[in-house]
Amino acid sequence: MKYGHFDDARREYVITNPQTPYPWINYLGNEDFFSLISNTAGGYSFYRDAKFRRLTRYRYNNVPVDDGGRYFYISDGDALWSPGWKPVKSDLDEYECRHGMGYTRFNSVKNDLRARILYMVPLGEKAEVQKLSLTNEGQSKKSVKLFSLAEWCLWNAEDDMNNLQRNLSTGEVEIEDGVIYHKTEYKERRNHYAFYSVNEKIQGFDTDRESFLGLYNGFQEPRRVREGTPGNSVAHGWSPIASHFLELELKPGETRELVFVLGYVELPEEEKWESKGIINKKPAKEIIGRYRNASDVDRAFDDLKSYWDDLLSRFVLDSGDEKLDRMVNIWNQYQNMVTFNMSRSASGFETGIGRGMGFRDSNQDLIGFVHMAPQRSRQRILDIAATQLPDGSAYHQYQPLTKRGNDAIGGNFNDDPVWLILSTVTYIKETGDFSILDEQVPFDNDESKALPLFDHLSASFTHVVNNLGPHGLPLIGRADWNDCLNLNCFSSDPNESFQTTENQAGGTAESLMIAGLFVLYGREYIRLARHLGKHELADEAGVHVDAMEASVIEHGWDGDWYLRAYDHYGKPVGSDQNEEGKIFIESQGFCTMAEIGKEQGYPRKALDAVKERLDTPYGMVILNPAFTRYYIEYGEISTYPAGYKENAGIFCHNNPWVMIGETRIGRGDRAFEYYGKIAPAYLEEISELHRVEPYVYCQMIAGKDAYKPGEGKNSWLTGTAAWNYYAITQWILGIRPDYDGLIIQPVVPAEWKGFSLRRRFRGTDVEIEVIQTGGGTVTAHLRRWCLKCLGKGEK
Amino acid sequence: MKYGHFDDARREYVITNPQTPYPWINYLGNEDFFSLISNTAGGYSFYRDAKFRRLTRYRYNNVPVDDGGRYFYISDGDALWSPGWKPVKSDLDEYECRHGMGYTRFNSVKNDLRARILYMVPLGEKAEVQKLSLTNEGQSKKSVKLFSLAEWCLWNAEDDMNNLQRNLSTGEVEIEDGVIYHKTEYKERRNHYAFYSVNEKIQGFDTDRESFLGLYNGFQEPRRVREGTPGNSVAHGWSPIASHFLELELKPGETRELVFVLGYVELPEEEKWESKGIINKKPAKEIIGRYRNASDVDRAFDDLKSYWDDLLSRFVLDSGDEKLDRMVNIWNQYQNMVTFNMSRSASGFETGIGRGMGFRDSNQDLIGFVHMAPQRSRQRILDIAATQLPDGSAYHQYQPLTKRGNDAIGGNFNDDPVWLILSTVTYIKETGDFSILDEQVPFDNDESKALPLFDHLSASFTHVVNNLGPHGLPLIGRADWNDCLNLNCFSSDPNESFQTTENQAGGTAESLMIAGLFVLYGREYIRLARHLGKHELADEAGVHVDAMEASVIEHGWDGDWYLRAYDHYGKPVGSDQNEEGKIFIESQGFCTMAEIGKEQGYPRKALDAVKERLDTPYGMVILNPAFTRYYIEYGEISTYPAGYKENAGIFCHNNPWVMIGETRIGRGDRAFEYYGKIAPAYLEEISELHRVEPYVYCQMIAGKDAYKPGEGKNSWLTGTAAWNYYAITQWILGIRPDYDGLIIQPVVPAEWKGFSLRRRFRGTDVEIEVIQTGGGTVTAHLRRWCLKCLGKGEK
Repeated sequence: MKYGHFDDARREYVITNPQTPYPWINYLGNEDFFSLISNTAGGYSFYRDAKFRRLTRYRYNNVPVDDGGRYFYISDGDALWSPGWKPVKSDLDEYECRHGMGYTRFNSVKNDLRARILYMVPLGEKAEVQKLSLTNEGQSKKSVKLFSLAEWCLWNAEDDMNNLQRNLSTGEVEIEDGVIYHKTEYKERRNHYAFYSVNEKIQGFDTDRESFLGLYNGFQEPRRVREGTPGNSVAHGWSPIASHFLELELKPGETRELVFVLGYVELPEEEKWESKGIINKKPAKEIIGRYRNASDVDRAFDDLKSYWDDLLSRFVLDSGDEKLDRMVNIWNQYQNMVTFNMSRSASGFETGIGRGMGFRDSNQDLIGFVHMAPQRSRQRILDIAATQLPDGSAYHQYQPLTKRGNDAIGGNFNDDPVWLILSTVTYIKETGDFSILDEQVPFDNDESKALPLFDHLSASFTHVVNNLGPHGLPLIGRADWNDCLNLNCFSSDPNESFQTTENQAGGTAESLMIAGLFVLYGREYIRLARHLGKHELADEAGVHVDAMEASVIEHGWDGDWYLRAYDHYGKPVGSDQNEEGKIFIESQGFCTMAEIGKEQGYPRKALDAVKERLDTPYGMVILNPAFTRYYIEYGEISTYPAGYKENAGIFCHNNPWVMIGETRIGRGDRAFEYYGKIAPAYLEEISELHRVEPYVYCQMIAGKDAYKPGEGKNSWLTGTAAWNYYAITQWILGIRPDYDGLIIQPVVPAEWKGFSLRRRFRGTDVEIEVIQTGGGTVTAHLRRWCLKCLGKGEK
Repeated sequence: MKYGHFDDARREYVITNPQTPYPWINYLGNEDFFSLISNTAGGYSFYRDAKFRRLTRYRYNNVPVDDGGRYFYISDGDALWSPGWKPVKSDLDEYECRHGMGYTRFNSVKNDLRARILYMVPLGEKAEVQKLSLTNEGQSKKSVKLFSLAEWCLWNAEDDMNNLQRNLSTGEVEIEDGVIYHKTEYKERRNHYAFYSVNEKIQGFDTDRESFLGLYNGFQEPRRVREGTPGNSVAHGWSPIASHFLELELKPGETRELVFVLGYVELPEEEKWESKGIINKKPAKEIIGRYRNASDVDRAFDDLKSYWDDLLSRFVLDSGDEKLDRMVNIWNQYQNMVTFNMSRSASGFETGIGRGMGFRDSNQDLIGFVHMAPQRSRQRILDIAATQLPDGSAYHQYQPLTKRGNDAIGGNFNDDPVWLILSTVTYIKETGDFSILDEQVPFDNDESKALPLFDHLSASFTHVVNNLGPHGLPLIGRADWNDCLNLNCFSSDPNESFQTTENQAGGTAESLMIAGLFVLYGREYIRLARHLGKHELADEAGVHVDAMEASVIEHGWDGDWYLRAYDHYGKPVGSDQNEEGKIFIESQGFCTMAEIGKEQGYPRKALDAVKERLDTPYGMVILNPAFTRYYIEYGEISTYPAGYKENAGIFCHNNPWVMIGETRIGRGDRAFEYYGKIAPAYLEEISELHRVEPYVYCQMIAGKDAYKPGEGKNSWLTGTAAWNYYAITQWILGIRPDYDGLIIQPVVPAEWKGFSLRRRFRGTDVEIEVIQTGGGTVTAHLRRWCLKCLGKGEK
């Protein structure tokens, strides 16, 4: 069952049934000011930091779900409704929600009254702008009462939830010229306030939640809306809100357009006040002044569209498969940018208060947007590297505001450092900008310990070499991807975090995934070194990589697949000997990408084992068989119910590793089969089962051991998007930037006739047409293709 | 306007209008298992720790307020309703909620169907028991569909709110014989589960929230209830709930009684499982077996009543003023016990996840319940003292589970140590148990640093002496009561906590409140030392106390009242010289209680100034005039809007200090006038304004500068209850335990004819009748009274 459809021409997903199986959201904003918005207008806004500068209040895991947002209530005769269906939930004659690139639109009708709303954050603006137009499509005059509603959050989203004995006494507002200003704590240490305006004279307002809703009413049934009169309440403590009240007369055929602005203002200490206790509203009025009327908003909307036209013009595929094209050209790239902007902090599943930037995560995310945002990518690499410790290890997370490593989470996740090599070489291959390697970058944010970025890559490489276990394989440390195989934790306290609890001393647990990662990106490090003429260094490094490969061949092969690890006691993990968890996807992915044991035929064998044991109709599970009890020596991975999350769920993040592995042995059919199983556009028809958005990837899909295999969770913010984009564009379509140009090496299904695409590469638009000329599955793919490359930069 | 009435005979508050101005709650439980329950059956349950063992889910600051609890839905023909009015909110023909001592009852009628529910936690039981009886009061047969509902919390209440990417995948339940078992994480590190049973065969159930409610429905309108059929859903992840479904036939006049049990079970590791994956249900069945039928519940209810009969028999006043009697005999004592049990952690305003036990708080709370729970008081004193540091200072909070000082909050609140003297001498005076002073008590929980408790009191005393400022007055440190006068913080970052941010070095800010506290309890320390024959120590201590008194007289008197403090720069705080915050209540309270400058007439002058400047119709504000801007040198106190909280709100906690001060100068009329202004029973008529419960104290009432003077907030958990109880019983009624017996020294209003009371004192019930024989206001109160003392122990 579908709940809408794609409109690829407009780059929109169009939801036509408001009762989606889960709230389907979108993101507004590109730089500092962001909003989450669902298909029923739920969600919230924040400035830069979803924890410390939360503008509007939102309750996660709420009943009803996603209750709270920026709502409009329309009272038209006997009809009381909301254009987004919620919160009123009246039956609508028409309902449509269009999630586009950085904006969301509603178009709904009830009783011959049409309401169109555009929600957007204009480029460079610290505000969400809402254009509401009402059209009387009936035959007689209408008198419409309109109420807006936003509930203010008291800035610090965590404190806002918990510190009620204080927070219910602090709320303060001002109301002037129909603009509602939220100034809680402005009188003291804050130098910022928020406001909500409308560009018409209002007939009333409310700023006190209880006065507006009534203490015992939900958002569905505000007392003031029911009564049809505003309370003109001025909040003092409790819960400040912003609600405008307007009475609108609409002749038949008449359209009225209103512009609402929900904005954020910061002021220097000396300019905070207009007069004692009265805030300086000048900057707010400037923002409001930029959106005086609908055409101002339309212009801003055009600018936003141009911005995305430009971003998405850098890789444009015409494959003949509309689902593939919409993933590659629109939604996967869009999701990559959102993940970049949000740093995985705020989604429908991430509350925005719990996470910093992941060292591992951010490096991987970068491979999905470096072609769109090379300058921002450059800065991010430098920011990440600056948190690395002198021994090459890394804080697992760092704080986005301070850009410093997060002591509270700590480090010792031994795969972390290696990902820095991936992000850096990917950046250089895309841009040709080797100068980044010469940037002086601190260790542990200590400028006195700054060294060129290249030395950080060396430190990453060396950290693995310096931390080998008894089989010559990398020590896993606290855990590798995805945090949950905790071989040194031995935790028995349910209130202990597996990510931070003290580890058993003398841990010798080793990871085959890090081994594969090291061989793969160690070779990239060597290639880079040679490129820079550092041949001695490269030779030396080569010895370590060769040794690692040999160790994997000797100690890491279980007979039909690669082991996953050796545990604290030196016992194999992910072996046919094990009762549960016989085979894991991560090491198969990385060891086949690295082609370890190619001569022995290991990659093909391993990939066949993956197909046999891990593949399902909904993607490949992370391991098999699922754990049915807690293994204290394995940690969090065995805490989940079978089929969920790291315990045999389908992680969309690691499926691309196997896709790439398949391309390395030339199996384009299988690589693309795997791609299509988890690519959301291909899942649109099973939305009822999949639940989460059909336009973006989710972190996990329930595996074959789960109650509902195929049910998705944790959508939007996941390295999944970057890896799938990387796999489809660079390895399946095979358009792969390299230091000296673009490699074109498609490994696609046999029945494809070909494809064409346009790709910007180092400032030039390269047009490529690929036509399949027949032939069987062979390893030398180039022979199977006739290439017509127009433009420059091809190889 | 009233929303109910007191039923003193049953010791109940009877709410007859469900739409109280704020949810009016009660507490169930006495030892380990607790529930909060509102007058519409909202709330939640936990075992021991409201953060780490939260059984059912609750959303604070919700819309609608207090949505979520343990609900029953009754579907009777066309009528759909809940006995607690919420969540369905149908109009009821009758509604009554009775909050009693450790139980809450509902009695509601709709369409000739009467529903009575008793909610209680039986003594010694790890379960909430609910007895529901339905009576058909109509003329024809009824077919009733009944649905129960509880929503499980995933144990750790904080993690439950935030870690959705994990928590939405972990939920697990079992259903057997109509009992719903919640076993999330039991398969791994937890050794506990919860269950919800009913003593009749069910016709269906639901355990998945969404299946029961529908994704877009609130608690008000569950899909299954509307449809009249259960979903028989088995939760796998998302949000597990427990809902029983029963179809009941009721003949005219027939009553059906059902018993529901919501319980908690912990098991040793080796007994966790019945078979692989199937939990051991034996302990649950034992609990359920104790409440097989209604008469089992009635017996448990009788036991609970006897328990409270006994507790409340220890101090029984007959004053002729029913409001006073119900405060003293019932509700104030009840609140004291609840505060003891909850340690201020979980109320309608405290979310149960943010607080440990306060060093200062717990010592003060003790003076309210030592007469009811001397053994538990003894243990608590020892627990508190064990967290004291060797230099006499204290961690500001300690953890209830580990009983160790909380590093995260730190210390340096320089009044903290002194309160240990108050609690200890109050305990000894009540019990005569001097042996507590010989108990070996660690410092900083380090057994190797154990010394007798008396030495802890000495350390407290000495800590003040060792931390004097330039005027010979006590250094305030981080802050004294109530945390918000932060004279050394100088905080400019809104995300910094005033309680934990690093203080300015070299702070010489001094506190007059601590000075008064020191003189008052320093003298108690000296008295105790003399009582123990430690005259040399007493003499030595006397020098310090005298010196402090002299310092206050010399540097702490502003002309008409006592200063509050000297700030970081040595400028007076709470002086007529100041533009705002000219006079504070805390130092007036403690310096008058300590009678500092009695010869000079300071106490009377100060108390007159309090009357003039701080008193309002709703109690005495904390300071005047309110601060209208942020004073970085004063800290949090100036962050609140004027009239709220520490910025000129009415703190019910410190009003009794002034009441006691008034008794010291013999002004019983005024002391009692102050008492009645904030005692909740006297505020019942203005419930609409007061908002919070008319049967318990709240922390704060909005002051005269506030938008709504008289509006109460933060009810239930506050040292307020203990101090008011102490003030009314020991100082106004004047029945005061001392080392050698009971002092009887009433200071009551002139128009009182007298009062009688019965008080248990060291195992003997002392009956006292006091008859006023006339005369003016004089300081020698005893002369004004004719005392008839029956029993032993009087002095």
